[in-house]
Amino acid sequence: MKLYYAPGTCALAAHIVLEEVGAPFTLEKVDFAADEQNSPGYLSLNPKGRVPLLVDGDFSLTEAPAILQYIAEQYPEADLLPPLGARERARMLEWLNYLSSGLHIAFSYIMRPHRYTDDASAHAGIVEKGRAVFHDSFQYIEGRVPEDGWLAGAYSVADPYLGTMYRWGNRAGYAMKQDFPRLAAHAERLSARPAVQRALATEGITLEDRPG
Amino acid sequence: MKLYYAPGTCALAAHIVLEEVGAPFTLEKVDFAADEQNSPGYLSLNPKGRVPLLVDGDFSLTEAPAILQYIAEQYPEADLLPPLGARERARMLEWLNYLSSGLHIAFSYIMRPHRYTDDASAHAGIVEKGRAVFHDSFQYIEGRVPEDGWLAGAYSVADPYLGTMYRWGNRAGYAMKQDFPRLAAHAERLSARPAVQRALATEGITLEDRPG
Repeated sequence: MKLYYAPGTCALAAHIVLEEVGAPFTLEKVDFAADEQNSPGYLSLNPKGRVPLLVDGDFSLTEAPAILQYIAEQYPEADLLPPLGARERARMLEWLNYLSSGLHIAFSYIMRPHRYTDDASAHAGIVEKGRAVFHDSFQYIEGRVPEDGWLAGAYSVADPYLGTMYRWGNRAGYAMKQDFPRLAAHAERLSARPAVQRALATEGITLEDRPG
Repeated sequence: MKLYYAPGTCALAAHIVLEEVGAPFTLEKVDFAADEQNSPGYLSLNPKGRVPLLVDGDFSLTEAPAILQYIAEQYPEADLLPPLGARERARMLEWLNYLSSGLHIAFSYIMRPHRYTDDASAHAGIVEKGRAVFHDSFQYIEGRVPEDGWLAGAYSVADPYLGTMYRWGNRAGYAMKQDFPRLAAHAERLSARPAVQRALATEGITLEDRPG
């Protein structure tokens, strides 16, 4: 399997899961600074112009939650998904979707306000709203992250996905450790896993990275 | 199972899937015109203030893609989910996430620009951008909907989810039938299913509803 990624993006969660399952994989860095995600070459692979993109032989797949589950399903012995029909599984799916369509979107108001209007004079107001919604979302999550353990009972693909966005909170300048102690403890448990450490080291980042 | 819904929202997909599996269920209408989704009573059930909300005994679940899969997993004999590990399954998950975090979000720029900025003078520009992104997303989808059959090989929970948003395209005034013939044919196949017809009749809507 080949993962197209950029360091610290939501592709990090897929990178971690590839490490967790012990799959043979290669990484292909997409240079966001050079806008390579919108180059004709990359758009021919992924017309969405986003990462992550997973290529497995002649099969190519986008959308982080789909990629996370696809990798985990190829390696059932790694046990990263609750069983079909279990409530823990539904909870995991709920987290994946909330993180993708809620928290990630709020972060995109901050990082990419031009997606929301062509009126450049409105961008500052969208960033400001994004910062409020992003913070409120972490508050909501803080009330729901278990004090110990993981999001859906056992460790699952939802946990590195949350950890990736916890890092974004730090990067956006929030005092994550002080304001969201349960989230911070979750990130610390995550950072203690060897597979997570390998992925972070390869990308040259930590979950506690600060702005800049 | 009890489904909290409002007619024509993305809860329609969950309603259809409840009909498809033949589950005993009750519907609880949330009155959006009276902003009931933000009432203390409803927020105590679902702090997100959104629909759908599924309540199954003492288990309550939000996020449409999670609800769709949870219902289908309780009724495996209805065969609405590709098997674990199959590429068709990954494709279904990719569709669910794209519809939730892409197409649905674009529609929310149009319907709820106040989510994106507190600056009311910027709302018209956000609606306009939403209309462009929403249209572009349908174009993208049109190139990927199969000419015959369903999104992920066999019929799956992703199909009524797409059908729900096809209806939003009509409601937003796009000429869906003319501009997106593959999407329209998909909606027509969907509308021919008895379970879909029952859910639409109960909500008092069709997939071809026009603005107003």
